Amino acid sequence: MSERSYAIVGTGAIGGYYGACLQRAGFDVHFLVHSGYEQIRERGLVIESYQGDFSLPQVKAYQEATEMPMCDVVVVALKTTQNQILPKILPWLVKENSIVLLMQNGLGIEPEIAQILTSQTLVGGLCFICSNKVAPGQICHLDYGAIKLGEYAPRYQPRGSTEALRQLAVDFSAAGIEVMLSQDLLQARWEKLIWNIPFNSLSVILNARTDQMMANTGVRLLSQEIMQEVLAAAKATGRSIPQSNIQRYLEHTLKMKPYQTSMKIDYERQRPLEVEAIVGNPLRMGTSAGADLPHIRMLYHQLKFLDARNCSGAAAA
Amino acid sequence: MSERSYAIVGTGAIGGYYGACLQRAGFDVHFLVHSGYEQIRERGLVIESYQGDFSLPQVKAYQEATEMPMCDVVVVALKTTQNQILPKILPWLVKENSIVLLMQNGLGIEPEIAQILTSQTLVGGLCFICSNKVAPGQICHLDYGAIKLGEYAPRYQPRGSTEALRQLAVDFSAAGIEVMLSQDLLQARWEKLIWNIPFNSLSVILNARTDQMMANTGVRLLSQEIMQEVLAAAKATGRSIPQSNIQRYLEHTLKMKPYQTSMKIDYERQRPLEVEAIVGNPLRMGTSAGADLPHIRMLYHQLKFLDARNCSGAAAA
Repeated sequence: MSERSYAIVGTGAIGGYYGACLQRAGFDVHFLVHSGYEQIRERGLVIESYQGDFSLPQVKAYQEATEMPMCDVVVVALKTTQNQILPKILPWLVKENSIVLLMQNGLGIEPEIAQILTSQTLVGGLCFICSNKVAPGQICHLDYGAIKLGEYAPRYQPRGSTEALRQLAVDFSAAGIEVMLSQDLLQARWEKLIWNIPFNSLSVILNARTDQMMANTGVRLLSQEIMQEVLAAAKATGRSIPQSNIQRYLEHTLKMKPYQTSMKIDYERQRPLEVEAIVGNPLRMGTSAGADLPHIRMLYHQLKFLDARNCSGAAAA
Repeated sequence: MSERSYAIVGTGAIGGYYGACLQRAGFDVHFLVHSGYEQIRERGLVIESYQGDFSLPQVKAYQEATEMPMCDVVVVALKTTQNQILPKILPWLVKENSIVLLMQNGLGIEPEIAQILTSQTLVGGLCFICSNKVAPGQICHLDYGAIKLGEYAPRYQPRGSTEALRQLAVDFSAAGIEVMLSQDLLQARWEKLIWNIPFNSLSVILNARTDQMMANTGVRLLSQEIMQEVLAAAKATGRSIPQSNIQRYLEHTLKMKPYQTSMKIDYERQRPLEVEAIVGNPLRMGTSAGADLPHIRMLYHQLKFLDARNCSGAAAA
């Protein structure tokens, strides 16, 4: 067991779950909580998991980063739409040699975070998990749970297997979490976007679950064409993804339990959508590398329109 | 004043309006009515028009084509989604030398109608009008009103100015309707689709009026890209549309009164959408002529999904 301490920034479906797993395994974990602080302070965290429920009656919860100790690992588990608060938070939490682990979807977020950091190591984490926050401090873990880690270097240059990745792998494995290491963070991010771009986007635009989309021949075809564009975008940035991944993802989605994507859940709760991280940044990165991405461009404009109206509705309500 | 008699198939926003104008001008007009027959039989037609209201207390209304006389001109003013009933209707209404005037949106409908006809002349009519049926026999004419006519020949070969077009122009002008004649029906249909494809489609997908779409920079950009594809599709089929039409349409739409497209109205009333006529047929015609139309392809698949769910909802309700 390492002695590494963990700060969890954002105690929701992702941060709450992985943080709880780490604390259960004996790590010193500090939770920054935005909503539901009182409840978590009083009752701790409850994890309802398909792998077995567990609860942590006492956790170290904080409302302000300024009250937290500096930690060896700082896990950012906010939605990317909240990242504007990080410049005020991260400097309080990191030591000189901390690892900052960004558990967020999409692409192009690391360069922004890197600007806040000085000497720290930045690692991108891709979570392959279905989990929801059902109440403050109460997380429902429905399926999967693995995490893929890749270290960030400027302009997403591949960093290979690094010491920071190995350290994180040791800790997460000890916490019972399946870990995969990526030599090349950009490659890993593109590979996850093959699924996220079509299904997150279309789930909002068509107001549909994965099973409803997959039951429609045209939408299956459309998803495939969008996936093809993600491959083209990845290729333009020098990352080659085998064609077979598309078929594999489609078959996988066909077999999945009916699923509301995270973007659709955000839309229904009238929260800002992660359009820029999941669609806008990949679109811009691919396009400026020379790829033509008409489907993704159209998804982007459609989502921006829906997001703007949805959030203004929330403000008016 | 000609002696030509008119049959109006479909007494809704389009057929009701133009038929009423013709009857007011003294033509012998026969209306085939699907819904609201009793009301129209008893109270006739009421036109509330921005150009001046008028009513026709008595009209010749029919429930069955078999009861109607054969007419010199048969105006088809159904939604294209109802065209499957035409093989049972048209043969009762046409004489050997009748003109069949198809007042419908989209592309690729004439070839189907031509198969029903024998020696008759087929003319496509594009209606530039904002009108709604507000109740049985009651039409609200909000804006515009012009009609563009072009004679159909197999495979949309240009027919030039024909005798049938001149006859219709005389009658419609006498009825106070602005008439434009097109030498080339396919060209005219593509030109109208520049507007119909983006705005009908996006109004349903984004659940938005024209003014809401035009107020959003991204959607304006997207509309422009879709229009560009319509130009490319037209070009692939040998029809050249000046680039300037796009800017003109956008400026025009910016100035329009907030408008619900016909497709959006159909969607809200849970009626089948004219996806094939307005999007599917142009997509197939353009694609098989060699154009790459990713935006239009995506609109098509999105609309097909929404249409199928919408209609199944109607069936269940």
